Amino acid sequence: MIDRARLERRMGELARIGGTGTSVTRLGLSSEEQRARDLVGGWLAARGARVHRDPAANLWARFEPPGAGGQSLPIVVGSHLDSVPEGGRFDGALGVLCAVEAVESLLDAKSELRRPIEVVAWADEEGARFGVGLFGSTAAFGRLAANVAERHDRAGTSIADALRALGEHGDPALARRGPKEFVAYCELHIEQGPRLDQAGLALGVVDAIVGIYHARVTVRGRADHAGATVMTARADALAAAAEIVLEVERIARSRADAVGTVGEIAVRPGAKNVVPGECVFSLDLRTAHGLDSLVHDTLAAVERVTHARGVSASIDELARVSATTLDERIRGVLKRAAKSVGVDAPELTSGAGHDAQNPALAGVPTGMLFVRSTGGSHTPREFASIDDAAVGAEALAIALRELAS
Amino acid sequence: MIDRARLERRMGELARIGGTGTSVTRLGLSSEEQRARDLVGGWLAARGARVHRDPAANLWARFEPPGAGGQSLPIVVGSHLDSVPEGGRFDGALGVLCAVEAVESLLDAKSELRRPIEVVAWADEEGARFGVGLFGSTAAFGRLAANVAERHDRAGTSIADALRALGEHGDPALARRGPKEFVAYCELHIEQGPRLDQAGLALGVVDAIVGIYHARVTVRGRADHAGATVMTARADALAAAAEIVLEVERIARSRADAVGTVGEIAVRPGAKNVVPGECVFSLDLRTAHGLDSLVHDTLAAVERVTHARGVSASIDELARVSATTLDERIRGVLKRAAKSVGVDAPELTSGAGHDAQNPALAGVPTGMLFVRSTGGSHTPREFASIDDAAVGAEALAIALRELAS
Repeated sequence: MIDRARLERRMGELARIGGTGTSVTRLGLSSEEQRARDLVGGWLAARGARVHRDPAANLWARFEPPGAGGQSLPIVVGSHLDSVPEGGRFDGALGVLCAVEAVESLLDAKSELRRPIEVVAWADEEGARFGVGLFGSTAAFGRLAANVAERHDRAGTSIADALRALGEHGDPALARRGPKEFVAYCELHIEQGPRLDQAGLALGVVDAIVGIYHARVTVRGRADHAGATVMTARADALAAAAEIVLEVERIARSRADAVGTVGEIAVRPGAKNVVPGECVFSLDLRTAHGLDSLVHDTLAAVERVTHARGVSASIDELARVSATTLDERIRGVLKRAAKSVGVDAPELTSGAGHDAQNPALAGVPTGMLFVRSTGGSHTPREFASIDDAAVGAEALAIALRELAS
Repeated sequence: MIDRARLERRMGELARIGGTGTSVTRLGLSSEEQRARDLVGGWLAARGARVHRDPAANLWARFEPPGAGGQSLPIVVGSHLDSVPEGGRFDGALGVLCAVEAVESLLDAKSELRRPIEVVAWADEEGARFGVGLFGSTAAFGRLAANVAERHDRAGTSIADALRALGEHGDPALARRGPKEFVAYCELHIEQGPRLDQAGLALGVVDAIVGIYHARVTVRGRADHAGATVMTARADALAAAAEIVLEVERIARSRADAVGTVGEIAVRPGAKNVVPGECVFSLDLRTAHGLDSLVHDTLAAVERVTHARGVSASIDELARVSATTLDERIRGVLKRAAKSVGVDAPELTSGAGHDAQNPALAGVPTGMLFVRSTGGSHTPREFASIDDAAVGAEALAIALRELAS
């Protein structure tokens, strides 16, 4: 049985690390993230886990089954402990808290398990500081890009420096574990959209994670005096970018499950009386079906708009991750577990990226459980009730017991 | 006679203040602008002027005529010393340099004058930092809006703070001088468009200055997760702003002599994976005919776009200055002066705002001389040759001699 009081008390304890009362700022590879790892590692060590931190700063805690004759390959369960700047208490953190609570409830109940269970807290999922999302899980599954440890934050500190400041050697690639070392991976996470809340349901089971394309687009026109340059003589970089922003929106809207977002934009020189000569903006495209075609159509629109306006554009592709379908058997286990705690959990596609993509792409049978959030995510308004959290932890415990038996 | 070597040497000296070799960044009310004032004030003091800085940080340098029996009301000649970010060496600066050179050439020639001449370097003409263009001349003619000194730059520094950092009391309204204190005002400035260059002429005489409307528009939507929020559930502040940018362009294009520009834009929270919840941008509208109707149509488009998208907008009007016709007699003086240096100067309407608007609107007889620029303005490419600058300074000297006699 889930110990609601223990779960609720720990939610509060964890939220104080990097918390300001209204929001949480616990960036990946920061000392706040490390304090959160120390707190969680302490709870798990106290229950007998072997706890260690790997070279990518992921926290691992392994519980061996009591009987010596069990299988040695573990079931892994976890999420991440970092947040975006001015984020909330639940994104990532709830998944770790519920994994800890689920495992403790199995220990409390002296459940007979044949396989080890490992709890993992992935480092730097958000990538808010260094721009490398899913950092820890990408390292653990050997999928890091070359030289990624040399990437810098705005203060000039590299990922390698940040790891060394935590006491590691600075080479996160050493965190690699083979996918054959795991039987299954499960992750609980708040839903980052409103569907469960709208449906009045506490839990959902993720069927797939969307593919994501990230790029930086630079439009180059010509800076001119805003008063003395007639409209027909301009090469306005912002006007071209504005047309592209609307094309990104139109193309995403024209597809059933796609989203397209321009979330950052800047112009140069950036004065009210100067026609913008340059405009740089971000491009975030996501879909569970046909990412390449969505990217192709959007980049064709960039080309069309800039050509028609006599300006130029360059595209700096930052990431392109295919859509990931999660394991059908694990999905079934999670649906039955939800059912047994009274929730007829719908299957949902995740529009956000998750650490679960990495084991799934590496071939580890992987499943994800969503818990209702009534205030979105990446904001202090994100909120999962203790009732929903407890139901989620209980379903997770039931699923782990089935998988580890 | 104009001392070309002296003029050219001083052009180089002034350009080094805030200069990077390729561009000049000498923002209004900055320490760079103050260094430029110190340099110019030093030249003028060395020739016997009484030099002082007023509470709006305008630099004044007064030359009394040698005979004690002359009239006491002065002719004023000048321009500004600040630049836009990454601007050029000539916008504003050339007008001050030529005013200094014109006065020095009259002193060199021991010209007999009946009236004092005052050289003025207006502070913060561009308004690049605080969003208040024509700042110093507006203060001097008592036309500042209430509470303008409380306006902040992006770092939270107010105009009053910036003035106090220069050693003033922080109340620019104290810079007011009555329009009856001046007999005439003349300003030389590079043309900020291509007409003189296209006509192959060094000088033009300004007949009118367009009306200008400046505002800051804030669009408020809702920040949401870029992956988990479907397109139909968004209130994207940037997408609404993009539509407005294109409406500003369309409306200006539909009128014969209008221009409309969005030169600054910023979004919040400003992360690639967050739908923009807020977008702030500048609006610059200009026309010599029907400014109010141009403003009305544009603001109606803001209302239409935001209403249709379920977002809101607020408009912070920063300036609305009617079109200004310059003084017919002074225009005649300037045309004759240009003729006597060999240029048949055409009359041109200025699409840019100028400090000259303020004395003109206050009833001071006002004239402006344009010098050819071969690379536009508000860019490092702006360029007036030393030949053209010398011809301009000479014409200005001839005009001043006539006006002060």
